[in-house]
Amino acid sequence: MKLANLIGDRFRETPSDCVVESHALMLRGGYMKYVANGIYSSLPPLCRITRKIEQIIREEMDAAGGQEVQFPVVLPASYWQESGRYDSVGSELLRFTDRNGSPMVLGMTHEEAAVALVREYGATYSRYPFLFYQIQTKFRDEARPRAGLIRVREFTMKDAYSFHTSQEDLEACYRRCHSAYERIFARAGLPEVISVASDSGMMGGNLSHEFMLLTPAGEDSIVLCPSCGYRANMEAAECITEAPSEGICASEGRTDGHTECAASSLPLPALTEVSTPGVHTIDELCAFLGITAAQCCKAVVYQRNRDDSYVVLFIRGDLDVNETKLTNRLGEEVHPGEITEGSGLQAGFIGPAALYAGLRKNSGENTGLTILFDRSLKGATGLVCGANRADFHYTGLCMERDCPDASYEDFAKAQEGGICPVCGRHSLTISRGIEVGNIFQLGTKYSKAMHMQYVDADGAAHYPLMGCYGIGIGRLAASVCEAHHDEYGPIWPITISPWQVHLCCMRSDNAEVHAMADALYDELQRAGVEVLYDDRNVSAGVMFSDADLLGIPIRLIASPRNRKEGCVEMTLRGNKADTCKIPADEIVLRVREKISALTAALQPE
Amino acid sequence: MKLANLIGDRFRETPSDCVVESHALMLRGGYMKYVANGIYSSLPPLCRITRKIEQIIREEMDAAGGQEVQFPVVLPASYWQESGRYDSVGSELLRFTDRNGSPMVLGMTHEEAAVALVREYGATYSRYPFLFYQIQTKFRDEARPRAGLIRVREFTMKDAYSFHTSQEDLEACYRRCHSAYERIFARAGLPEVISVASDSGMMGGNLSHEFMLLTPAGEDSIVLCPSCGYRANMEAAECITEAPSEGICASEGRTDGHTECAASSLPLPALTEVSTPGVHTIDELCAFLGITAAQCCKAVVYQRNRDDSYVVLFIRGDLDVNETKLTNRLGEEVHPGEITEGSGLQAGFIGPAALYAGLRKNSGENTGLTILFDRSLKGATGLVCGANRADFHYTGLCMERDCPDASYEDFAKAQEGGICPVCGRHSLTISRGIEVGNIFQLGTKYSKAMHMQYVDADGAAHYPLMGCYGIGIGRLAASVCEAHHDEYGPIWPITISPWQVHLCCMRSDNAEVHAMADALYDELQRAGVEVLYDDRNVSAGVMFSDADLLGIPIRLIASPRNRKEGCVEMTLRGNKADTCKIPADEIVLRVREKISALTAALQPE
Repeated sequence: MKLANLIGDRFRETPSDCVVESHALMLRGGYMKYVANGIYSSLPPLCRITRKIEQIIREEMDAAGGQEVQFPVVLPASYWQESGRYDSVGSELLRFTDRNGSPMVLGMTHEEAAVALVREYGATYSRYPFLFYQIQTKFRDEARPRAGLIRVREFTMKDAYSFHTSQEDLEACYRRCHSAYERIFARAGLPEVISVASDSGMMGGNLSHEFMLLTPAGEDSIVLCPSCGYRANMEAAECITEAPSEGICASEGRTDGHTECAASSLPLPALTEVSTPGVHTIDELCAFLGITAAQCCKAVVYQRNRDDSYVVLFIRGDLDVNETKLTNRLGEEVHPGEITEGSGLQAGFIGPAALYAGLRKNSGENTGLTILFDRSLKGATGLVCGANRADFHYTGLCMERDCPDASYEDFAKAQEGGICPVCGRHSLTISRGIEVGNIFQLGTKYSKAMHMQYVDADGAAHYPLMGCYGIGIGRLAASVCEAHHDEYGPIWPITISPWQVHLCCMRSDNAEVHAMADALYDELQRAGVEVLYDDRNVSAGVMFSDADLLGIPIRLIASPRNRKEGCVEMTLRGNKADTCKIPADEIVLRVREKISALTAALQPE
Repeated sequence: MKLANLIGDRFRETPSDCVVESHALMLRGGYMKYVANGIYSSLPPLCRITRKIEQIIREEMDAAGGQEVQFPVVLPASYWQESGRYDSVGSELLRFTDRNGSPMVLGMTHEEAAVALVREYGATYSRYPFLFYQIQTKFRDEARPRAGLIRVREFTMKDAYSFHTSQEDLEACYRRCHSAYERIFARAGLPEVISVASDSGMMGGNLSHEFMLLTPAGEDSIVLCPSCGYRANMEAAECITEAPSEGICASEGRTDGHTECAASSLPLPALTEVSTPGVHTIDELCAFLGITAAQCCKAVVYQRNRDDSYVVLFIRGDLDVNETKLTNRLGEEVHPGEITEGSGLQAGFIGPAALYAGLRKNSGENTGLTILFDRSLKGATGLVCGANRADFHYTGLCMERDCPDASYEDFAKAQEGGICPVCGRHSLTISRGIEVGNIFQLGTKYSKAMHMQYVDADGAAHYPLMGCYGIGIGRLAASVCEAHHDEYGPIWPITISPWQVHLCCMRSDNAEVHAMADALYDELQRAGVEVLYDDRNVSAGVMFSDADLLGIPIRLIASPRNRKEGCVEMTLRGNKADTCKIPADEIVLRVREKISALTAALQPE
């Protein structure tokens, strides 16, 4: 391909709306073009990268026993009604009506379609297990697309589905897909991708992993323990807090109310109302009373999406709520609560003590008010909390004494420096990451909901177990760019580079140089090498900045000086120090060697 | 791949809703599964066929200078509003609103997206010409999907777009794509596909061709002249009729009204009202008056979709209206007219004479009534037509005399045995065909509508010319099946067959035979041959009927008898007489030779 004919514009300026490097470089390099919010067209360089990633994925999924299929993009709503997700998934599921009035959806994932495909085929145990995959366009009507190809509305995804008659068999396939994913990411140039335990979210099921590229450009938070290797995404990471240290006691009123503190044998402080005029936030409270956030019992108020009923979650003041844990516990979606006059809640002054006493008998299913306690509060004493009337707090809150029948669960986000749930050290670090793939053990969620059963050898009917396995192709391409670029452009791994060789003809107005470069272009193409050939009559600056933006790993430069020496210069995009002059008659050989070496370096063992 | 693991059911019975063979065979063979009306999932055999067709298309489009891109499936409605097609295209364009209330469409073709992609890139003449293509899912909300993959709502299409600064350049690219298409169809196993001149329909533009597979299963009608090679689809085929022979004269009333007939010098018959009680149709009229349909002047009534205004088209009674010609003439869509009391039209008795006289002054834009004349009527004399009052007709209608300022155009369908517009012989035949591809010279329709301009060497701005070029991948696969099958299943060409070799192990319960077949399976796979291996312990009947349904061209049979002879039997799916025994140690060689020979036979010169 001649660069002069390559469609797409390359430019120097970073577009103003780009928050990550891959987005900026892929626009600047003519890889893609904006169509609508979160929707792009791919230009030839990105299309070529995509095809190569898809080919790697096909090879590895086939090797893992996968069979390629293709589902429709447009699916009947009835599939999603069967599984229950037509109602449970929010407006990212695009719903519409066709010309005959039939409700349809745009597939954002294909578990339902997968079950429908093999519901009859999988009626007998002897046909299990089976694994199939597709590479197809998906549409997810994201509220906030961002970061170019990292979070889009329309994307190409490889999604795979497996069906099993036993948990062991599902786990074996899950491990096989885990390995296939490691190979895929390594071959695509991202051996540094790690898998982390994750929350299954709207997919359902028991166990899942996300494959993460750690990078500040990522939008996911990953909890890591460098000490023992524990890895989880923020949604799934357990939060462990220390045994509570004693809080403060109000100096006034330490009289009859004192009891023994179980842990320390110190007398427990009395629950004491204190005036805190205009003090609404934890920060204000800490400043006002001269305490730390960890000495506060914070109330975080949510409302259920379904009916706007309230959920009040008490948590230690220095911790944040992990909303995924909350929605998993509730089994439904919530949003931040808006506290109205009729709610019986006193915004800024909500506490478990009086609230707990006063509303406990009304709480639960009947009134719709749910009160939850994070386990960071368990056994804590001497805390400060709201007094459930304006401008007053309590000091001396002791959970066991004041909330005797509270039950405690994990609702908190893990924190930097927090306690590792595996090795127990204060070693947790939080990193940003891009999720480039995920695998799920779905169990029988979909087979049960959609009445897919098989008959075993004894004639008994069972629901098969399912796994599902996804990789976003465009996001993977962007992640490679994010991980491998410099200020001038992407540095593509040879395995997914749009072309293998970028041939620059410096001074193409020099007929002899041009002829030599033409001959080399022909020779390399005949040898099966993918060459992008720049024979434009432009300055070296323009030529090299375009080459940098296109990021092709092997660069050959034909110039008047080289020609006199009967040589061509070969240099690597990723390592410009690795430059050498090669006699013209050795070039094909040396280029092939270099391609092989670069490819081999990315080959997993 | 082992057949025992291949997902999908094969079965013997033809599903009741199948009207064409390819539909039945592709369901029966486990190629695809119904999802919704006109929407299917592809199972692995079809997916493999599809991938191979796509690869052939990529190679030929690349060779023609095409660059692969990818457009979104979901497009902003604004693109289609710019081109004007948001309003002009009917409900097959699926329109919906995203979560932010933005109007979107599902891409059914991508001219608008193509212009938007290169509107800035193509701002300078020096960047022309360029040709790019995508292979992508499209959705067209067909009113009546039918015939399996022949007419679906969701389909995969290769669509290409070219941009030019001159008509000559467009024509050169058009010819190159025409050749590429011939190569694609030949390599995919359909060298018999022909190109026919076609109507450009909703695409706009001047010149277009459809690539047709002639088969009774097709839904298009193609007009062919075996004598001179003229080919056009029915929509585009010119209809030529003979110079009119004289019609009948009413025997009564031949008095003053007689004038000379220009052609024959015979006296013209007088226009005479005759009573035709209850005679509404041409057939009834012919029977009643003892005349032929060719002696009638038929009125066909339409209404414009836009405002329901009437269009009355007069045409010779033995001809049918080509509605494409009519809508092209009007520049808008029409539907069959419903004649109401207030219309001034007398259903069943409409004629040009009195109607013409009475309504002519009101016709045209003002009243909305349009009166058109097919050229089959030009110069005709002695016709019978309606008298524009119930139960009466005229005889003796002479067009020149009675409709002196009528103008005549071609609105008629070509007929079997009709006159070839090129060689003039009465040689036309009408065949059914499936349209597997099309190419269009679009001119400046889209560049003008969407304000895409380039600046030429002199600084003057122009609209570029466009071409577009489509192939439906699934329809092509179904067409190959339609053209190449027997009663037992498809007979796939080697180039697109899901696998190259079908290896049958007869009596897999015989350990020695099974071991030999296993070894052969491994050896062939190591040699890079695509093998589907059936080692199920099933009867020969089941094994061979499955093999026939899967249609793989080369079949190898390992059996106890063959094993004793140290041989394997090789047979061809398409020619069972071509059977031979091959010594075990020659098999890889002989299979490779056969693959090469079968491939070479499909290679265009």
